[in-house]
Amino acid sequence: MLNLSTLDQQTLLPGTKGLALTQPLQQKDIAQQHWNVLNADTSFPVAVLKQSALQHNLQWMKKFCDSMQVVLAPHGKTTMSPQLFDMQLKNGAWGITLATVNQALVAHRFGVRRVLLANQLISRSDTQAVLALMQADPAFEFFALTDSLDGVQRMAEQVQAAGLDRPLPLLVELGFVGGRTGCRNRDEALAVARAIHQSPYLQLAGIEGYEGLLVGKHRDQDLIAVRAFINDLITLTQQADNEGLFAGEQILLSAGGSAYFDLVGRGFEQTMQLSRPVTAILRSGCYVTHDHGFYHHLLQEMQTRESVVKADNLRPALEVWSIVQSRPEPDLAILMMGKRDASYDIDLPFPVKTHRPGDKSQPCDLPAGCKIEKMNDQHAYLRLPRDSAICASLQVGDLVACGISHPCTTFDKWPVILVVDDDYQVQSAVNTFF
Amino acid sequence: MLNLSTLDQQTLLPGTKGLALTQPLQQKDIAQQHWNVLNADTSFPVAVLKQSALQHNLQWMKKFCDSMQVVLAPHGKTTMSPQLFDMQLKNGAWGITLATVNQALVAHRFGVRRVLLANQLISRSDTQAVLALMQADPAFEFFALTDSLDGVQRMAEQVQAAGLDRPLPLLVELGFVGGRTGCRNRDEALAVARAIHQSPYLQLAGIEGYEGLLVGKHRDQDLIAVRAFINDLITLTQQADNEGLFAGEQILLSAGGSAYFDLVGRGFEQTMQLSRPVTAILRSGCYVTHDHGFYHHLLQEMQTRESVVKADNLRPALEVWSIVQSRPEPDLAILMMGKRDASYDIDLPFPVKTHRPGDKSQPCDLPAGCKIEKMNDQHAYLRLPRDSAICASLQVGDLVACGISHPCTTFDKWPVILVVDDDYQVQSAVNTFF
Repeated sequence: MLNLSTLDQQTLLPGTKGLALTQPLQQKDIAQQHWNVLNADTSFPVAVLKQSALQHNLQWMKKFCDSMQVVLAPHGKTTMSPQLFDMQLKNGAWGITLATVNQALVAHRFGVRRVLLANQLISRSDTQAVLALMQADPAFEFFALTDSLDGVQRMAEQVQAAGLDRPLPLLVELGFVGGRTGCRNRDEALAVARAIHQSPYLQLAGIEGYEGLLVGKHRDQDLIAVRAFINDLITLTQQADNEGLFAGEQILLSAGGSAYFDLVGRGFEQTMQLSRPVTAILRSGCYVTHDHGFYHHLLQEMQTRESVVKADNLRPALEVWSIVQSRPEPDLAILMMGKRDASYDIDLPFPVKTHRPGDKSQPCDLPAGCKIEKMNDQHAYLRLPRDSAICASLQVGDLVACGISHPCTTFDKWPVILVVDDDYQVQSAVNTFF
Repeated sequence: MLNLSTLDQQTLLPGTKGLALTQPLQQKDIAQQHWNVLNADTSFPVAVLKQSALQHNLQWMKKFCDSMQVVLAPHGKTTMSPQLFDMQLKNGAWGITLATVNQALVAHRFGVRRVLLANQLISRSDTQAVLALMQADPAFEFFALTDSLDGVQRMAEQVQAAGLDRPLPLLVELGFVGGRTGCRNRDEALAVARAIHQSPYLQLAGIEGYEGLLVGKHRDQDLIAVRAFINDLITLTQQADNEGLFAGEQILLSAGGSAYFDLVGRGFEQTMQLSRPVTAILRSGCYVTHDHGFYHHLLQEMQTRESVVKADNLRPALEVWSIVQSRPEPDLAILMMGKRDASYDIDLPFPVKTHRPGDKSQPCDLPAGCKIEKMNDQHAYLRLPRDSAICASLQVGDLVACGISHPCTTFDKWPVILVVDDDYQVQSAVNTFF
C-alpha cells in the first residue's frame, strides 16, 4: 500500500547498528544472509521484532476495533517506521496519528494519505510546510488539533497567507485540570469550536481528548477519571453539534492511548443523536509491539475488565539482545547495551533470556532475580542472584535478551530493526525515521 | 582532514527533524537559506550548536592537553558526528575513542585513521568486521581493551581465524570494586597482560582505566578514590613494563572521562622509569559541547582545583529550542519538545531563554524558577513562577531555549544539528550516525 521500494533498495553501510557488515548490503537482500541472532551472526546489541507477535498484535487490534465499532489511527510516533505503518494500514487503520509536522512529512513521503496530527500547528515554518503539502496534494487528508483562541487565530492567518484552496480541518482538544494540552473545560472548548466555525479558513472536523495521562497511583481513581473524561468528550460533541458547529460529512471523535483504549471504545458506544455520522477513532500506538513492562501491566489490568481482551492478549514483539562483555565480580555481568540501545525512561530493560552462541538448544529463560540495575550510555549492569546456576554459568560471550518498557523510547534508538521468526532467523528489516 | 564531501552533498528530505523543508535541500546549501532560529525559520524543536562555543571549547582543550603534556582521543560516542571528529582531529586529537565496532566502522568510513575502542571485542561478527577492516587497510590503527583471560583467548582465536597479518594491539583495563568493566586488582590485570604477551596474535599496547564512574555523593571521597585509581594505573604500567610485557614503540596509558580529566592529567605527570616512551591519552568526549547541567557543575568544581581551568572555562554549545504550544493553566506552558528531543537521563532540560519571533531584540534570559517539570515523548511541561512577568507575558508561539545536561543523550536524538552564530543565524549543519 505504501511506497516502500526506496527502503528495500537502499544500501546499508558498514557501521549500521545491529548489523555486522563488512560490505555494503542492499536491504532487500537481508534474508539471503541467513543471519540468526542465536548464532551471533548480527552485531550486538541488536534490536529485533518478532514477526509472529507483530502479526498477532495487528490482528488482535483489528478484531478489537471491529468489536467496538471504532476505527484506528495508530500513533505513528511510537515506531516512525513506514513498514509498520504499511502493516497497520493494510490491517484496516483509518489513518496514522503523528506528533509533529516533520513526522507527517515523513509519513506522506512514503504514501500515507490521511494524517491526524495530535498536536497544534504553531510554528510558522512548520505550518507553511504542511500547508504547502496539502496545496500540492489535494488527496492528502490532514487534521490538526487546537485548544485556544490564540491558536485558532494563528492557524486562520496562516491558512489565509498560504492561499490553501480548502479550509483546514481541526479537532478541538478537550483536556483536564493537571493535564497537558487541551481546554480545561467544555465552555472553553465550545468557544474555540465557535471560533473555528466562524473562520472561512478553518473547519471544525471533530472533538479530541487524550485520557492516557491519567495513570496515577490509584487505578480505581484513574478509571473513574477516564470514564468521566470520555463522557465529557461526548457531551462536548453533542453540544457543538447542537450549535451546528461541525462541517464535513462526518464528525470525528477521537481519544485513546495505549492504556485505556477499552474504556474509550466502550465509552464511544454511547448513543448520540447527532446531525451526521460519527467516526470514533482510537489512536493507540504501542499495541503493535506491546512491551514487557509498562503496557504489559496496563493490559493485564485491561484483561480484568474487558472480555475481548480476556480471551487473548497482546504479545511483546520488541527485544534487545546483548552480549556479556565482562564478569568482573561474582554476581555482576556487564552487557554491551546502554542508554543508546534500550528504553530507560519508565523502567530499565528486563533480562528475560540467555543463549550461548553455537548451542543447538533454544534460549533459556533467565530466573527471577536477574536485574539490569543500571545503564550507562553504552553499558548495562546485569546483577545475578548469588548462588544461582546462572550466576555460576553465565560467561563472556553469552547472549542476553531484554524486554523493554515503553516501546517509543527504544524505537528511536534504532534506524534499522531486524524482523525475526520464532527461531530468531532474520527475515527482513524495518526502518525508522526520527 | 576527514572525507566529509558525501555529507555536504547529501540531499536532506522534507521531514528532517529541525528543518522545515518543503523541498529537498542539499546540505551544503543550508547557509544560503538564511535561516534564523529567532525568526522561527527552522522547525521546532530544533537542536543547535553555537559555533563560537564549539571553537572555544576545542581550543580550550588543546591548550589544556598541551599544558599537561597529554594527548586527546576524545570519546566519539558523545557526538558520533564526522564533522565534529574532523574539528577535533584538526585541533590535534591523537585519535578518536569509540564504544562499539559499528561506531568504529562509521569513523573509518569518514577517514578516521586511529581508533581506541574503549570496550572489548566479544561478538564474533563484530570482531570479524573490524579485523577485516584492519586487514584491508594496513594504515588503520585500532586498539581495543580487555579485562579477562577468557577475553584474551577469544580475541587470539579470532585474530588467528581472520588471518590478520599483524598482532592486534590491546590495552589491559584496570577497574575497581563496584565499578564497571576492568580487572578488580593489579594482580588480575598483570595476569591478563602476561596472557596477551604470550599470544603471537596479540600485542600489549598499554594500560587503561576509567575513573569517570567515581561520581558519588561525597566529592572529597570521590577525589581521593580517583587519585588512588590513577596511581594504581601508573603502578600497573610500571609492573608490566618491569616484566617486559609491552610491545610496540611506545606505551599507551589512558584514562579520563569528562569529570576528572584534570586529575588524570596531573596524575600522568608522575615520572616513570619505563623501557620506552609513554603516550598519555585522555578520552574526554563531552568537553566539545559541554552542557548546562551535569558537566557544568563538575567543571565548576574543577575550577577550584586547577589553575588552567580557573582562568577560563568550557562553554555550553548545545541548546534545544522549542515553541510554546499551549498555555492551558496560569503557570503552565506546554512546549513542543520531549524525550525524543532532549536529554532526560541525568536532569530534565533547563529553560534558559525566550524569544518572540519577529522581535528585533535579543532573546531574554528566563528568570530563576522556570522549570521543565516533566517530559512526555513529544511534549515538555514548563512551570513558570506564579505572578512573575514571564508568567503573564509568555504566549503561544513564543520560543523557549533549553540547555541540557549530558550531551550524549541529546546528540543521539538528532540526525542533523544546525550550527549557528551568536545571533542564531544558521551557518551549517553537522550529522550524527547512531
